[in-house]
Amino acid sequence: MSQLENIITDVSRLFIGEAVPDFYYHDTYVKNIKPVYAVALPKSHEEVKALVRFAIEKDLVIIARGAGSGVAGAQVPIKGNELIIDLHLMNRIIQLDEETLTLTVEPGVLIGNIHDFVEKKGYFYPPDPASKHSTIGGNVATNAGGLRAVKYGTTRDYVREMTVVLPDGEEMTLGSLNIKSSSGYDLKDLFIGSEGTLGITTHLRLKLIPLPKANVTILQALETAQKATEATLEILKSGVDPSGVELFERSALHYAEENLGYPLKSQVGQAYLMISLDGNDQKELDGRIDTVQSVTKHLTLESHALNAEEAKKNWALRDNILLGLTKFTEFELLDEVVPINKFAELIEATKAMQEKHGLNVLNFGHAGDGNVHTLLMKDDLTEEAWTKKRAALLKDLYHKVDTLGGLPSAEHGIGIVKKEYMDNMTQTINLEYMRQIKKIFDPENRLNPDKIF
Amino acid sequence: MSQLENIITDVSRLFIGEAVPDFYYHDTYVKNIKPVYAVALPKSHEEVKALVRFAIEKDLVIIARGAGSGVAGAQVPIKGNELIIDLHLMNRIIQLDEETLTLTVEPGVLIGNIHDFVEKKGYFYPPDPASKHSTIGGNVATNAGGLRAVKYGTTRDYVREMTVVLPDGEEMTLGSLNIKSSSGYDLKDLFIGSEGTLGITTHLRLKLIPLPKANVTILQALETAQKATEATLEILKSGVDPSGVELFERSALHYAEENLGYPLKSQVGQAYLMISLDGNDQKELDGRIDTVQSVTKHLTLESHALNAEEAKKNWALRDNILLGLTKFTEFELLDEVVPINKFAELIEATKAMQEKHGLNVLNFGHAGDGNVHTLLMKDDLTEEAWTKKRAALLKDLYHKVDTLGGLPSAEHGIGIVKKEYMDNMTQTINLEYMRQIKKIFDPENRLNPDKIF
Ligand SMILES: Cc1cc2nc3c(=O)[nH]c(=O)nc-3n(C[C@H](O)[C@H](O)[C@H](O)COP(=O)(O)OP(=O)(O)OC[C@H]3O[C@@H](n4cnc5c(N)ncnc54)[C@H](O)[C@@H]3O)c2cc1C
Ligand SMILES: Cc1cc2nc3c(=O)[nH]c(=O)nc-3n(C[C@H](O)[C@H](O)[C@H](O)COP(=O)(O)OP(=O)(O)OC[C@H]3O[C@@H](n4cnc5c(N)ncnc54)[C@H](O)[C@@H]3O)c2cc1C
Repeated sequence: MSQLENIITDVSRLFIGEAVPDFYYHDTYVKNIKPVYAVALPKSHEEVKALVRFAIEKDLVIIARGAGSGVAGAQVPIKGNELIIDLHLMNRIIQLDEETLTLTVEPGVLIGNIHDFVEKKGYFYPPDPASKHSTIGGNVATNAGGLRAVKYGTTRDYVREMTVVLPDGEEMTLGSLNIKSSSGYDLKDLFIGSEGTLGITTHLRLKLIPLPKANVTILQALETAQKATEATLEILKSGVDPSGVELFERSALHYAEENLGYPLKSQVGQAYLMISLDGNDQKELDGRIDTVQSVTKHLTLESHALNAEEAKKNWALRDNILLGLTKFTEFELLDEVVPINKFAELIEATKAMQEKHGLNVLNFGHAGDGNVHTLLMKDDLTEEAWTKKRAALLKDLYHKVDTLGGLPSAEHGIGIVKKEYMDNMTQTINLEYMRQIKKIFDPENRLNPDKIF
Repeated sequence: MSQLENIITDVSRLFIGEAVPDFYYHDTYVKNIKPVYAVALPKSHEEVKALVRFAIEKDLVIIARGAGSGVAGAQVPIKGNELIIDLHLMNRIIQLDEETLTLTVEPGVLIGNIHDFVEKKGYFYPPDPASKHSTIGGNVATNAGGLRAVKYGTTRDYVREMTVVLPDGEEMTLGSLNIKSSSGYDLKDLFIGSEGTLGITTHLRLKLIPLPKANVTILQALETAQKATEATLEILKSGVDPSGVELFERSALHYAEENLGYPLKSQVGQAYLMISLDGNDQKELDGRIDTVQSVTKHLTLESHALNAEEAKKNWALRDNILLGLTKFTEFELLDEVVPINKFAELIEATKAMQEKHGLNVLNFGHAGDGNVHTLLMKDDLTEEAWTKKRAALLKDLYHKVDTLGGLPSAEHGIGIVKKEYMDNMTQTINLEYMRQIKKIFDPENRLNPDKIF
């Protein structure tokens, strides 16, 4: 194995065989123990290329890994004998260019660090997955979303240019600093969201926008998720252009209130909306607050424009739904998406499934773009019952999502955990063309094989 | 040829051989006389499928055509013996769905009709190519842009779902009503902007947004294009989020003033910016007007917020640059794009080329997104001199665009007229993968072959 050590000469950046830390066998939720050939942590594009060439020579499967924060098992070893290329040490912020409004970074920079860096300089990078410790390379590979997608779009909309190392060791630059293009096929968007199956990103230029100077949050209490969905539609149609429309059920919030030890500002109703508005001056926002309140008046039980202190405390509750729950039970987190007008119907359907399968279910999510986060809770079920009931409920759930015209993943990716559902929910011809595209870029099926489809 | 008549039973929708009108041999600027097998005008998805199957059986090349408004020769026959499928009779607006904020249309609907239809109902479809008589199918195939792209993006950003008939006669639906997706490769964006080389669009679902309730125009005069570019950057960085930043030179305006018979509101300086702002109330816009004026104060000679009447008259001048010129000379219209900070450098370079090649050049364009429309004017040159000088200048020009990191086409497409430049300006590996993707979808090279690359 002398060659690997010739590429990564610093031994602290190389783990071979049994020395591979346990960490690399799992992501946030998925664990899969398969003997890994080695883990290498390159510090440059050239090292990544050399590693890919090494893998070709030794006929190894390659997996690119960012922070390992994924929740779909997209970067866990499943073949055995994989070379894992961990990119988190390629974490330099290279340049903020105020003339093209772009930020040039290596793929291992954490998204939280990108936010901090650009916001200090008056700029804004809108995609905001809750996992601040995930890498931008991972975000691009999963087309990460977050709370602000309803106004600002997802990671896809902020990648101007990316350089990838292909499975054959060649490199390619996709996109450019040009804002518009009708110059040939859009290869860049094919790579975004491809979960590390087409190429390894080594260099990125991201689009920035000016940082909004003011923002405000409105908390609304509603009788049911159905009413909250209707209110969401009214808000979207009103033209106030919200930067977030989050929906959660009282039952989901319960754990966060327990965990943080204080209540949500509103205690009535079964469903809540937290609506954020951003803009450049407070007066302008005031007008938009009025609009939100007047177009939803007939639907809400309470509606509060929060002051800064309240906003912070109430957002902390929303953000704590997952963390709060962790202290009470094991759970599985989903990220299905449906057309916005089907949001409530899906949530209602999960209630019926809860009864049918005897498994507790909670829902929260991005109502403004139809992305529900359904949580299945283990509570005190035995491992066996949990596995069985969960599988049965998931089958029903994804079937329902499919009949509503939805998709299995809005922002986390398919990885290995949603492959079966992806397969059921996607037309054969689309899957077939995806496979053919994979084959063009990776005829030897070397890069993250058997993920997605 | 009985079969074609079995598919299109209405003879008024079928032209065979010599009966094919001259119209089909050209687009707005490109003419190419090659004997066409037939032109068929289907009225349904099923007829399109049957036509494609017929072409396969007879081994004919197929070209999809919208309104023929294109300017790159993307839909002119170049092989001989083509079957042209003209989709402009598939022009039904099927549904405006206020719950998903989408508009379902056939591909032959004219973009101007889409605007009228949705705006009457309080909605907005932002992409606005100047060619109001082009079809939405053509707009999708060229990823059409327009003045509002700086704020709202291009056609690509407004296609939620599209159904295509593939060159093998099968059909595929790309995208969905879901706003977010991390569910497999993004095939939809591959088809958008592919200039009718991968599939024939027969059905579209477009994203709508609420119609802004107020808008305003600011006209600024500046000494040079360089200053106008600097002012553009200041405006973009200020956060006012302009819905248009148009730049034109005094020399380009001259023809429009002659043609319409009244002057632009400002008569000083060599370059002008027309900035549009839109939003939901006038007060809010007033604040943004102040911001525009204050951040550009050190750069402008004059800056006028126009009243409604003035806005109309001054926009008419801007819109008349092309039409005005038509009355004076033959010309070639380009749509190159460069990173926004290179806009002025490119314009300056064209001036030097004008001197060098003895060919008059004018520039106007979308400064907010780096998209220049350079115009080469024939004036009283002989056909031979025009052809020769133009070719020499174009070579220099695209070389300059390339060194500035630009692309040959921002919004018109490559077609046949920019193929050579596309080839020079694109990395071999990117071109190679585009070709391989074409081959997956169209192994027999039946659909619009030899366009783009
Ligand atoms: C608590 C929590 C909250 C979350 N909230 C959100 C949320 O709000 N929105 C959201 O969208 N996601 C969310 N996620 C999911 C997660 O953060 C994303 O999947 C993230 O984008 C993965 O980044 P990573 O660096 O951890 O990548 P990894 O988990 O290491 O890898 C994920 C995928 O990316 C590929 N990959 C990584 N780096 C590269 C590279 N350089 N080149 C090519 N492929 C690469 C891997 O092969 C793998 O397929 C959340 C996760 C957790 C645990
Ligand atoms: C005066 C003028 C101003 C213009 N201004 C702008 C502008 O501001 N912004 C801009 O972006 N463009 C502009 N254009 C360019 C032009 O309008 C676009 O190219 C337009 O999108 C073409 O639409 P069409 O229906 O005329 O298509 P056509 O010209 O008929 O075809 C163009 C391409 O689209 C393909 N195509 C058409 N229909 C389909 C279909 N249903 N399925 C698959 N492929 C199809 C054709 O094969 C061909 O490749 C302008 C053109 C003119 C003449």
